Amino acid sequence: MIGIIMGSDSDLPVMKQAADILEQLNISYEMTIVSAHRTPERMYDYAKNAEKRGIKVIIAGAGGAAHLPGMVASLTTIPVIGVPVKTSSLNGIDSLLSIVQMPAGIPVATVAINNAKNAGLLAASIISTFDKEVANRLKEYRKNLKEMVLQKAETLENIGYKEYLKEMNI
Amino acid sequence: MIGIIMGSDSDLPVMKQAADILEQLNISYEMTIVSAHRTPERMYDYAKNAEKRGIKVIIAGAGGAAHLPGMVASLTTIPVIGVPVKTSSLNGIDSLLSIVQMPAGIPVATVAINNAKNAGLLAASIISTFDKEVANRLKEYRKNLKEMVLQKAETLENIGYKEYLKEMNI
Amino acid sequence: MIGIIMGSDSDLPVMKQAADILEQLNISYEMTIVSAHRTPERMYDYAKNAEKRGIKVIIAGAGGAAHLPGMVASLTTIPVIGVPVKTSSLNGIDSLLSIVQMPAGIPVATVAINNAKNAGLLAASIISTFDKEVANRLKEYRKNLKEMVLQKAETLENIGYKEYLKEMNI
Amino acid sequence: MIGIIMGSDSDLPVMKQAADILEQLNISYEMTIVSAHRTPERMYDYAKNAEKRGIKVIIAGAGGAAHLPGMVASLTTIPVIGVPVKTSSLNGIDSLLSIVQMPAGIPVATVAINNAKNAGLLAASIISTFDKEVANRLKEYRKNLKEMVLQKAETLENIGYKEYLKEMNI
Amino acid sequence: MIGIIMGSDSDLPVMKQAADILEQLNISYEMTIVSAHRTPERMYDYAKNAEKRGIKVIIAGAGGAAHLPGMVASLTTIPVIGVPVKTSSLNGIDSLLSIVQMPAGIPVATVAINNAKNAGLLAASIISTFDKEVANRLKEYRKNLKEMVLQKAETLENIGYKEYLKEMNI
Amino acid sequence: MIGIIMGSDSDLPVMKQAADILEQLNISYEMTIVSAHRTPERMYDYAKNAEKRGIKVIIAGAGGAAHLPGMVASLTTIPVIGVPVKTSSLNGIDSLLSIVQMPAGIPVATVAINNAKNAGLLAASIISTFDKEVANRLKEYRKNLKEMVLQKAETLENIGYKEYLKEMNI
Amino acid sequence: MIGIIMGSDSDLPVMKQAADILEQLNISYEMTIVSAHRTPERMYDYAKNAEKRGIKVIIAGAGGAAHLPGMVASLTTIPVIGVPVKTSSLNGIDSLLSIVQMPAGIPVATVAINNAKNAGLLAASIISTFDKEVANRLKEYRKNLKEMVLQKAETLENIGYKEYLKEMNI
Amino acid sequence: MIGIIMGSDSDLPVMKQAADILEQLNISYEMTIVSAHRTPERMYDYAKNAEKRGIKVIIAGAGGAAHLPGMVASLTTIPVIGVPVKTSSLNGIDSLLSIVQMPAGIPVATVAINNAKNAGLLAASIISTFDKEVANRLKEYRKNLKEMVLQKAETLENIGYKEYLKEMNI
Repeated sequence: MIGIIMGSDSDLPVMKQAADILEQLNISYEMTIVSAHRTPERMYDYAKNAEKRGIKVIIAGAGGAAHLPGMVASLTTIPVIGVPVKTSSLNGIDSLLSIVQMPAGIPVATVAINNAKNAGLLAASIISTFDKEVANRLKEYRKNLKEMVLQKAETLENIGYKEYLKEMNI
Repeated sequence: MIGIIMGSDSDLPVMKQAADILEQLNISYEMTIVSAHRTPERMYDYAKNAEKRGIKVIIAGAGGAAHLPGMVASLTTIPVIGVPVKTSSLNGIDSLLSIVQMPAGIPVATVAINNAKNAGLLAASIISTFDKEVANRLKEYRKNLKEMVLQKAETLENIGYKEYLKEMNI
Repeated sequence: MIGIIMGSDSDLPVMKQAADILEQLNISYEMTIVSAHRTPERMYDYAKNAEKRGIKVIIAGAGGAAHLPGMVASLTTIPVIGVPVKTSSLNGIDSLLSIVQMPAGIPVATVAINNAKNAGLLAASIISTFDKEVANRLKEYRKNLKEMVLQKAETLENIGYKEYLKEMNI
Repeated sequence: MIGIIMGSDSDLPVMKQAADILEQLNISYEMTIVSAHRTPERMYDYAKNAEKRGIKVIIAGAGGAAHLPGMVASLTTIPVIGVPVKTSSLNGIDSLLSIVQMPAGIPVATVAINNAKNAGLLAASIISTFDKEVANRLKEYRKNLKEMVLQKAETLENIGYKEYLKEMNI
Repeated sequence: MIGIIMGSDSDLPVMKQAADILEQLNISYEMTIVSAHRTPERMYDYAKNAEKRGIKVIIAGAGGAAHLPGMVASLTTIPVIGVPVKTSSLNGIDSLLSIVQMPAGIPVATVAINNAKNAGLLAASIISTFDKEVANRLKEYRKNLKEMVLQKAETLENIGYKEYLKEMNI
Repeated sequence: MIGIIMGSDSDLPVMKQAADILEQLNISYEMTIVSAHRTPERMYDYAKNAEKRGIKVIIAGAGGAAHLPGMVASLTTIPVIGVPVKTSSLNGIDSLLSIVQMPAGIPVATVAINNAKNAGLLAASIISTFDKEVANRLKEYRKNLKEMVLQKAETLENIGYKEYLKEMNI
Repeated sequence: MIGIIMGSDSDLPVMKQAADILEQLNISYEMTIVSAHRTPERMYDYAKNAEKRGIKVIIAGAGGAAHLPGMVASLTTIPVIGVPVKTSSLNGIDSLLSIVQMPAGIPVATVAINNAKNAGLLAASIISTFDKEVANRLKEYRKNLKEMVLQKAETLENIGYKEYLKEMNI
Repeated sequence: MIGIIMGSDSDLPVMKQAADILEQLNISYEMTIVSAHRTPERMYDYAKNAEKRGIKVIIAGAGGAAHLPGMVASLTTIPVIGVPVKTSSLNGIDSLLSIVQMPAGIPVATVAINNAKNAGLLAASIISTFDKEVANRLKEYRKNLKEMVLQKAETLENIGYKEYLKEMNI
């Protein structure tokens, strides 16, 4: 099971992408709110008990001085994936640096700003190292990604960019 | 008493400035290493017990994904001053953003990159709100700062910049 | 009493958060406009007389080349909290650096961009070092923060993220 | 087995940390040079065959327009960890953004600039999801990290910072 | 012939400017979607066969960790022009650095963020080194650019800025 | 007389502020479009003849790779004031660096991003070094600035921030 | 007369370039230390009396939260030129933004980071608006700049870059 | 023939790489100094006459407010390649933005900071669009690049990284 946590419910519109992709890949997950700063004890408990509770990977999203992923990583040895959430003033460069620049000893697997979908895919990829079925579903997912691009490419080549843009309504 | 903590002994050459200025201002302090990421339990204990132990202000220095000041702030209501320590790759802009961009609810009083001296002075200023003697010593310190500048200005005006630079050995 | 000042009335929608939280914590404050650049003499007078007038902490907000917090800090020894106000072109990174990068000798306790609420809470935290009642109210405030997160977490766990997002109207 | 690759032998002084920590944790690895730009075919072959060859996780380091980690990730579904190598002009912020800002669909687990040690630890953490022994060794490693900090903290508290700095030779 | 490729059809509103200007300059082109990350094999084929198929210059647009231009450049020796597409979080500074900071050996001719028109003009300029007619059309284009500015300047001088702004509807 | 030039009529909504303030201060000016890149010969002529034509100061606004102010400065010895115009992708940090980072020998007096009003005031200040009347008008302008702040401060103090915000319609 | 001031004598190695070039152009100047933060009253006096004392232009250099140029500009209407001094952690981007991003009403004529020579030249250019002799000396200076470049160009063309580099000892 | 120009002889240690690679590829070139700011007339003449003199591509290097490549591009329609030279304060991010962010109409083919070698290779690639022999030499060059990587990879695999680092003397 994957644990998806976030610092605030305002992060939910971003973090839901992780849940969506895990559902699509048929991987079980749980999702809740754990604030490093407003509920530090809860964060301790969550991180300390995750492994025992059967959590294999934790996905943690946070914005600004985003301490949640790194602090959770310091309290467990299972993989922690950090999602830097975009902020209104600094666009998430603060979140990114707060999450990725961890000191030697405690890594956080950081993905792109707001890219919780990739966090879900990375969790799936980690699961796939010991679960053949998930590995196959990931390969299927990639094939579909490719098909979609090929189809769009074919359409663009066939109808030309002017027609294509019209259909995109731009 | 002021508590001075830092994430690693590699921060000591910076953080010692806080101790130096507090000694100079005759304010008692303690100093130790508390790593948010490598000793999270110790950090919890330190922050949770600081107020009871008579600590009035905590000065916390850290670099990179600098979570120590913010996490300590989330575990106590006494003022926490954060010192962003300069890093080798990003020069401390990562430390600065990780410390200053705290979410609403949990402030960290952030000073300039590597400026632990100002952290000490800010702690003294906080103490001075209820301690007249410290207030007077701070005023004295400021007067001396001013005197030093005036003296240098006078020298520069008297001997000219060419002579002055020679005496600075540049 | 806390003094809240700002460089321009355009900063008021941000700075009002400081007043709001101080009211909520039952700490008296005054609020006015003091421009470092357009009313430098007024700034001098304000800063020079603040301590005598019973001001314990000054909260100063400004944007762009934000000189107000640092200049006020240079004219008094009581704690000065700086609020970097977001700017239209550089999003407040200019305000942040202009406020936080103070030279050794004159600290400004800097909070996050636009986070005047945290400035109010930091002021309260400073007052709490000598005022037990304020300390208790701050602890109460923190408990409420925590409760709110726990409640939201419970709701999210109970109804799931799809339902939750619907209720958030996103 | 872990595959460690890098774009150029100039990255070796950084990337060797990944090998060092894997050796320390008794996890087998292989290490070679694969340049996305100078040997694109070799990169294709490496990435396409890694899973079949028994590679469980790939650690890829690169600097500047660092395309190696992302391109390898696009050619395999096993987890790819990216190490942004510091560059002489932009200090590695170019490497970091080139690696972390991957589009939805293809994640790279990014660690801090030059922090190949954390890449090794993250790889170990991924292995630990299905290998109890590695999990135990990781927990042991963390315990040692903690012990080292506690020891240093004790020394600092006992001998004071002036003596401590002398022993650090600073 | 010029080949215009892009990582995703979401880049089309930007990349169409390259096609528009090439049409205006009467230079033949083809346009399609080639994703470095989702269709790496297609990218290999496209880049490997471009020269043989008569492509003289490739214009490649991509955003975020923008690997398309650099990877195509590594697989062919014809000139590759990179267009950094603006991104929602980092405004395209990530795209720019991912494209322009190529290592020694494999250049990408980078233009301004979102400036696909200049990519088209640069392609035309390259063609003009061996095609006199294109050179003349480019010179004509420049003359028109100049005329337009001169006309606007004249209007502004004649009617004044207040009237001019009214006519611009601002 | 002051010469106000800009690279494109899209800069006019910003640059008009310079004209407005000069009118307000009763200083004569002319305003036109001179593009460094699209009308380089016109730029040469403008800059080369400005002094002879009685221009005392040139205000030049441009965005992106903003070469106009620096190139004009290289072709005349009268003071050139540069206005970095905000850009859609990089918010004007590109314009600012392109204008302010001039090499030793050729200065450009740079003002804040989009702050053409300050360019007009700086031009007036330069004129005031030899024109008493302009100096007096500038002093009057400053007094008015101050009065406005004092009035707003008084209103805020009298009616409180809640009422004040209502009147600002926020 | 030109007034050259700086926040600290550590700025002198940079600011001396302004004095050097003014000497070279035979323009009288005075030079002293005025700290906005450590000697705010002195700064007030200096700025308030500059015009009466015959100062025509003030050159002010400062680093970090560089408030000196902007505060001086707020206290006088004569032109103020700001020199952002390079800082050890942020390389002077903090100084640059603190100086250039002044609010509407109070301009500072900002030059490049550490480029005090250009500050001197800009001051000379301002003086030249009413002093023909200075104007001529400036034109002479420019001619010499040009001659030097032409001479170097000729040498490079004659002896080739390999020989030229040898003579530069690189 | 390729024209290599630079704003100052201090750029020569960087720009020589362009000449070196062109020599290696047996492509004729000329090299001289042309300063946009100190010799603007010379720049005009150079750019205006380049095409007539048989120059096929211009490589222009400059640092800081780097106007040379863009201004040359505005005065000719042959391809102009810009090399952003690293600067002491801002590391070349100023040079990069000043060169790459050209307005629509006038492109500059920008390469990485200090990467004049890639500028030479890009010029060769442009020449190769109409010169088969240069195309072949470029392909040969690429093959050698690849060989070198493969050789190093083989060595690293054979002797291991510890031995390899010893031989690199690190």
